[in-house]
Formats: sequence, structure tokens, C-alpha cells
Amino acid sequence: MKKIVVANRGEIALRVMRSAREMGIATVAVYSEADRTMPFVQYADEAVCIGPAPSSQSYLLGNKIIEVAREKGADAIHPGYGFLSENAGFAKAVTDAGLIFIGPSAASIEVMGSKLAAKQAAQQFGVPMVPGTETPLRSIEEAREVVKKTGFPILIKASAGGGGKGMRVVQQENELEEQIRLAKSEALSAFGDDAVFIEKYVTAPRHIEIQVLGDQHGNCVYLFERECSIQRRHQKLIEEAPSSVLTPAIRAAMGECAVSVARACNYYGAGTVEFLVDDSLNFYFLEMNTRLQVEHPVTEMITGLDLVKEQIRIADGGRLPFTQEELKINGHAIELRICAEDPANNFLPDTGRLETYIRPQGYGVRVDDGYEEGMDIPIFYDPMISKLIAWGATREEARERLIRAIDEYRVTGIRTTLPFGKWALQQAPFIEGKFDTNFIAKYFTPQSLENTDEETARAAAILAAQLWQTAVKPATALNGTAETPASKWKLRRTLR
Amino acid sequence: MKKIVVANRGEIALRVMRSAREMGIATVAVYSEADRTMPFVQYADEAVCIGPAPSSQSYLLGNKIIEVAREKGADAIHPGYGFLSENAGFAKAVTDAGLIFIGPSAASIEVMGSKLAAKQAAQQFGVPMVPGTETPLRSIEEAREVVKKTGFPILIKASAGGGGKGMRVVQQENELEEQIRLAKSEALSAFGDDAVFIEKYVTAPRHIEIQVLGDQHGNCVYLFERECSIQRRHQKLIEEAPSSVLTPAIRAAMGECAVSVARACNYYGAGTVEFLVDDSLNFYFLEMNTRLQVEHPVTEMITGLDLVKEQIRIADGGRLPFTQEELKINGHAIELRICAEDPANNFLPDTGRLETYIRPQGYGVRVDDGYEEGMDIPIFYDPMISKLIAWGATREEARERLIRAIDEYRVTGIRTTLPFGKWALQQAPFIEGKFDTNFIAKYFTPQSLENTDEETARAAAILAAQLWQTAVKPATALNGTAETPASKWKLRRTLR
Repeated sequence: MKKIVVANRGEIALRVMRSAREMGIATVAVYSEADRTMPFVQYADEAVCIGPAPSSQSYLLGNKIIEVAREKGADAIHPGYGFLSENAGFAKAVTDAGLIFIGPSAASIEVMGSKLAAKQAAQQFGVPMVPGTETPLRSIEEAREVVKKTGFPILIKASAGGGGKGMRVVQQENELEEQIRLAKSEALSAFGDDAVFIEKYVTAPRHIEIQVLGDQHGNCVYLFERECSIQRRHQKLIEEAPSSVLTPAIRAAMGECAVSVARACNYYGAGTVEFLVDDSLNFYFLEMNTRLQVEHPVTEMITGLDLVKEQIRIADGGRLPFTQEELKINGHAIELRICAEDPANNFLPDTGRLETYIRPQGYGVRVDDGYEEGMDIPIFYDPMISKLIAWGATREEARERLIRAIDEYRVTGIRTTLPFGKWALQQAPFIEGKFDTNFIAKYFTPQSLENTDEETARAAAILAAQLWQTAVKPATALNGTAETPASKWKLRRTLR
Repeated sequence: MKKIVVANRGEIALRVMRSAREMGIATVAVYSEADRTMPFVQYADEAVCIGPAPSSQSYLLGNKIIEVAREKGADAIHPGYGFLSENAGFAKAVTDAGLIFIGPSAASIEVMGSKLAAKQAAQQFGVPMVPGTETPLRSIEEAREVVKKTGFPILIKASAGGGGKGMRVVQQENELEEQIRLAKSEALSAFGDDAVFIEKYVTAPRHIEIQVLGDQHGNCVYLFERECSIQRRHQKLIEEAPSSVLTPAIRAAMGECAVSVARACNYYGAGTVEFLVDDSLNFYFLEMNTRLQVEHPVTEMITGLDLVKEQIRIADGGRLPFTQEELKINGHAIELRICAEDPANNFLPDTGRLETYIRPQGYGVRVDDGYEEGMDIPIFYDPMISKLIAWGATREEARERLIRAIDEYRVTGIRTTLPFGKWALQQAPFIEGKFDTNFIAKYFTPQSLENTDEETARAAAILAAQLWQTAVKPATALNGTAETPASKWKLRRTLR
């Protein structure tokens, strides 16, 4: 492989290009008009504008991207995550065009794209499932029969679903018929497919996923788990590896299940098998994501592998250079997604300009981002600005380091999840590792951050007193003259 | 320990404070008037100006720093490296004042501060020495006797020496008397002590050092080696861990010798035992540095330990939480020192303002620095701006990653060792791991970087042609209008 088109934007495009560059592979960026000045466009060896801002007119134009790849003499296309990454038709079109798709086969994507087909494939290998239906629901009578076995509450899910759409919790019998009707209609309008099925609703579950890596020669390994329970709107905000609750035996059992799921669809490349884990540490197969995950860095930090390089080598026909036995967990990593959102206002997306943007530095801190100071966050795309990852020899060291890094991160001009992250990392349930997907709903209120502000105010008062006594002249920060680079540090400490 | 005074400046002060903050320990910066706006001053919880720019009027004023520690209610002082870090009198004064010195005992510093005393202490434990005299040279006759055994060339060294001062190579008999006279007079004027001794001059040696860590309860381990052969003016520019030539057996033998040297002076804290290694992999004790080394991050990256945290825990009376057997090497790390120097002009120090200063980011890259964009590099201190460290699962991955990071690093307004670093990492002897302390003298000429420029010009021409064909409008970079944040990336790619 000599040249790759990166069919994505922002942090993941930049992240893919960095690995390609380390491998001596040239990169081509494709970008929308809104992204003209983005770092990933500048970082690429070549860059081609493929259309206006809305994804449907640029990042989702598979044929146009393939055309660019051919014109530029590229060998392969890396889809990143989101956009075309789990589109079986695109994967097929890429290979039909004589190019390499850096991901699994179109057939694997297709099987795992249907939640029901995925369950059926996995079930043959004895992978544990949440009790429920394994085929699309045909009638309300069938639903009633199933519920007799599972009991309430149950979850109605769209077979073609994702991101929480077409998903409804039913608490009691008299809501059942109505909720099925609503779920079917929501599924039809969102995915063009009204197939729904029933699962027992696991209360207080953990969301734990297993990273798998398979080559095209039948080898497949698991790279341990990621704990992703801290979510808002069914989307992850804080992820870590390893999980603080899994025992080595359960880790191995889940890992082997994940490899079975991958084998069930002849999987190759990097993939993620998601599980629900209940409070007795029973685990249930949820679905498989047939692409790189946003949170893949925590796995990289504890295994030392570069997953993008592995994806590229596998797509190029390479064999896995290690066995399961050779893989070891080294330390602990925690990631905070820094999104342009207002945590105090129900995590609603915020827009604006990154007026100040200073990244943390130092040992064990990694920042994967796609913006620079002075840039606007476009409204057209995902509000994630950056991923802040801390590695530590122990979970506690990773946690302390991530808090230190959050304190160093300085963003003004836009609200972010940074203060939420600091708050979350300091809560007893997080420190003790005892939490589930209800963490935010259970513990977080807009007032949570006010308390932090109060604490900060107290710290700021102490600081001010100290400044008074010492020879420091914090002129730039406190008397309103123009900010110097160094004064930004001080300002952050007093303001946060 | 609740509060620490950091008796240093720049990157190492900031690096120490980051670890202290992760441990929940408050920090006090002491700084010179020239450093008022430096990030380490802003990062500290408190900061006190202790005098004018020259070190003798600020950073070397031990008593003043102790006074600050008392006033601020600090428990301990961390000396960093350089300045007071290997000053036994200061270490004693700190403990006499009832404070903790974060380093070894004054007695250990004193023994290892004298090269001859260090050799005598180490010799009792059977540590191999370069053949030569073990006591100060008393007469020219004694010198002639010694040389009969060692043969030429020999090295005359000052017992109190360091940094190459008072060191002279003698190639033949008729130069001997004159060179001894010159070395003694140089030693007297530099260190106030004219004691010199003779060592066989090892040609084409490698400089390999062993990191040791001992506690106050008699436990001591080695944290493997650092290869530091790439030097100019006897000062290191590129360091890596592990070394690409040591076998496990030699690594263990050197490690055990280093622990013996540490035991010879009842050492505790972090220390470094330096060895010369010849081309047959014979190793010889050189000296012990009784402090944190500049290049300590490469050891952190391959062991997962935070050496500053270990120093603090040890100084606080803690026991080493691991045994030698539990320590393992994980991957490979390479560090480039980025100094304000002109490699094309004999590495002469350069001064000026960091007009552009953009750090590389991403997986496996660590930047330890002490400046921000827009700051001047003061002429009073060491010209090191930053340390760029890359970790990789293999040496080759670390090397490729470091080159990628050098390409991303953008510094304008001042000449640096960045282009030298890129050149060095691409040379066959470096790639193959076959080099010694003569690397720069043997391979590097000012023209070496011109070739790089030529390559870059070619790359820039290709890029320009590409830009022409693609939809990229590189207006900001190419037609001279104001630079946007993103255009800085592009500019770098075309200029380097």
C-alpha cells in the first residue's frame, strides 16, 4: 500500500493519517467546503473538496470518494467511523473498483448491520443472549408469549437500529401493544424497515465491549475490554480499559465469545463486540460494530498496539503478528470525550469559536483532536472536539492523571464536557468503579457543576491571597490587559 | 508530604509539578526575574521571585530557597537537575532545616561527586573500571608507569570534573607531560582542585547508563539502560531505551553492577550509573549522577513508572513497591532534545523568540517542555526548549513515530536541533543501531541538512503541483495573506 484516501473528517481523519505517515503511506483527504481549513485537510499529502457541508452532499458520496481514489492513484480507502464506515454497499463498491477497503468484508458488515441476523449468527456459537425473540415480531400474541418468559420490563428494539432510535422500554402489560406500534413506526421512518424484536430489559447494566482483531487467514484475537457505561443519550462520554469489575475468568469468557461472534461472520479487520453486563456479572451479546470505535485509544494504551496500523496491515493481506497468549494488559487508560455541549443544560450541543485552545501535555497524556485555536466548530457534524486519554500504571494513577490533564486543558468560546469529566472522575462511584449506564441519570444534576464552581471559587480565593503575599505579579490575568501565552495558564487556574 | 518547593525552572520544574499535582501535593515555584512569565511559574500553586536572572543570584541561592520553603510551610524541596541538584552542602542544609530533600543523602552526593572517590567505592564491589589510576596522579613517572600497562591513547580526567572540562586525550608519549600540566591547570581553575587521573581511552565507545532506584530501607533495583551515545560537546542530543546492542545477559550484568555502585554509597532515590561500552560489549564504570537525568522520560515510557512520583515516595520514607523480577521492558522509546542551537553552525546556541510554536500530538508522542508560543528563550540558561519523546512497540516504530512527530513540530523564530534530529534518525547507522559517541563527528556536516532541504524542496514542488490539480485553495500559505491556525500546518510541510 502506497497511498490511502481517508473518507472521514476531524480527529479520526488526522489520527488515521498519522499512522499512515509513520508507515510511509501517503494520504489523500476528501473534505467538505465547511472543512476547508481543518488540520486533517492540511495534514494530508493531497486533498480534494468533494462538496458542500451537509454529509449527504460530501462525506456520504461513496462513488465520488471512489472516483477521487482512482484519480489520485490510491490503493485503498479508510472509512474511519460513522459516515460510510458500516455501509456494506460502499465496501463492495470500493472492492469492485479494484481498491482495498480498510475494514471487514461487505458480507460481514451486512450480517452485523442487522441486529437480528447478528444474534442468529452468534447464537450458533453459544454466545449468551438477553432472553427475548430471535426473529422479527409477527404479532402481539407472540409478544405476549415472549413476555411470559422474560417478565417485565422489556425492551423493544429495531432490527436495523442504532444510536437508540426505535428503542422503547415497556414496564407493564397494558403498554405493550401501543409501544410495539410506536417502535415499528419509528423504525420504519428511521431505517426503512419496521422489523422489531423483544429483549428482556436488563436494569442497571454495564456496557462493556470487546475489541477483536482478525486477519484474512483465519486468525482472530481479542484485545480485552472497554468499559463504556458512562453515557448520555445512549452515547458514550467516558471509557476505560480494563474494566474494574471483570475477573480474569470473565474477561477470558467474554473475549472468547467475542472471537466466536467474529468467526460467525468470517470477520477480519478491527471490530468491537458489545455486551451488556448485569450486576451479577452475567454478560449478554448486544451487537457488533464492524469498524474502528471512537474509544479505540484506551485499548491502544493498554496493549501498545496501533489499531490503525493493524487495520492497514490486515487489509493489505498481512497476518496477525501475535497470538492471544502473547497479548497482555499493561496498566490502565481512561478517555474523556470533549464535546461542544453544555453539561449544565442537558448536554445540548453548543456552537461557536475555539477562542482559546490549549492542550494538556506531559507523561501519560494523549490528545486526539481535529481543531486548532481560532477555529469554528461546524454545526453540520458530530460535536466532538477532542478525545483526552490518560494512561496510568494503575486505574487510580490514570484517574489522577486525567484530572490533572483536564485542569490543564483550556477551552474558551464554547462550552464543553470538560467540567462534567472532572466532576465525574471525582465521584465516589467512579473512584470505586461501582457504576452502570444510569450513572449520569442517577448522580448528575446541573447543580453538580455549580458545586464544582463553588469549590473553584474557594480555591481561587486562596490563590488570590497567595498571590497577594508572593512576589508574583499576575498583572496580565487580573487587571485585564492583553493576555500573554503564559497568563492563559494562570487564568485557567483561577477561572475553573 | 503536602507541599513541595521546586528549586528549578523550565521543563523540569513543570514536569515535577505535574506529578506532584497528580499526587495531590501543592507546589511552590521559585523563579528569577527573567522567568516571571514562564509556564512553570504560572502552573505552580504559589510562586516566589528569588532574584535576578543570573543563576548565582537566584537558582543557586540555596539558603534563600530554604527560606521560601519555611515561609510557605513546605515539607520538601525537589532540586530537578543541574543547579543545586548535586550539591551535597545544599542537601545537608535542607535536611538541617527540618525539610525533606527529594534526592539521595548528602553523603551519597559527596562520594559520587568525586570521580576518584566514586571509583574507589565502586571497586570494592568488583565493578569493572577502565584501566588506569585510582588515586590522584602524583608524578610524571607514575603516569609513565601506568601508560606502560594501558597503552595509548589515554584520557586525563579531573577528579572533580564534569561536562568534559579538564578532560584531555593523549595520543603519544611525547605529549604526556604537557597535557597533564594543562589538565591540572584547567581542573584547578574550573573546580578549585587540580587532582587528575589517567584512564585508558576507549575508542568508539558507547555511552550507556543504568537507571537505579533505591529506597531508605535497603532495597535497590535497576530500571534498565539508556543509550546516550549521540552527543555533541560531550552533551547528549538523542537518547533511547533500551539499547539496541545489549544482550539480556549484559543488561543484567550492567544492572547488577549499577546496583552495587548504588549500594557502595548507601544510595536512595533515583540515580544513574554511567558506563562506557566498547565494541566488544565490555563495559566500564564511568560515574554516578545522583539526581534525575534530563533523559529520564525514555525509562518512564518503557517501564510505565513515573520517576518523579517514585522520588517523592522514597524521600517520604516509602518502600519500593516492586522487586527487580517484576520489572519488564515494554517497547522502545527515543528522545530528541530540542535545543535553541544552529546545527548547521556547529550547534552554536541561538537566541530569539518562539514566533510559532506548535507541538506534535497523537499516539505515543510526549512533549516535555517549558515554553509557550510568543516567548523569548532567555540567554541566561540552558538552551534546551523541549524534549520530544516517542514510544513504539518496537524500536523501528518508535523511530518512525519520532520522525512523524518532528515533522509535526513547528518552531519558527529560532533555530533548533529539530532538523538535525530528523537527519540523524534517517541515517543507516542509526536505523541499524550501529553507532558510538563519534556519530556526529563521523557522519554529520553542515551540508547534511542542506541535502534535507533539497529533498524538502523536491517534496514541496510535488506538493505545489498537487495543489494545482486539486480543489485545495492554499491561499493563506502560498499567497502571503495572514496565517490562519490551520495554514501553519501546510506552511511547515512546504518549508521543511
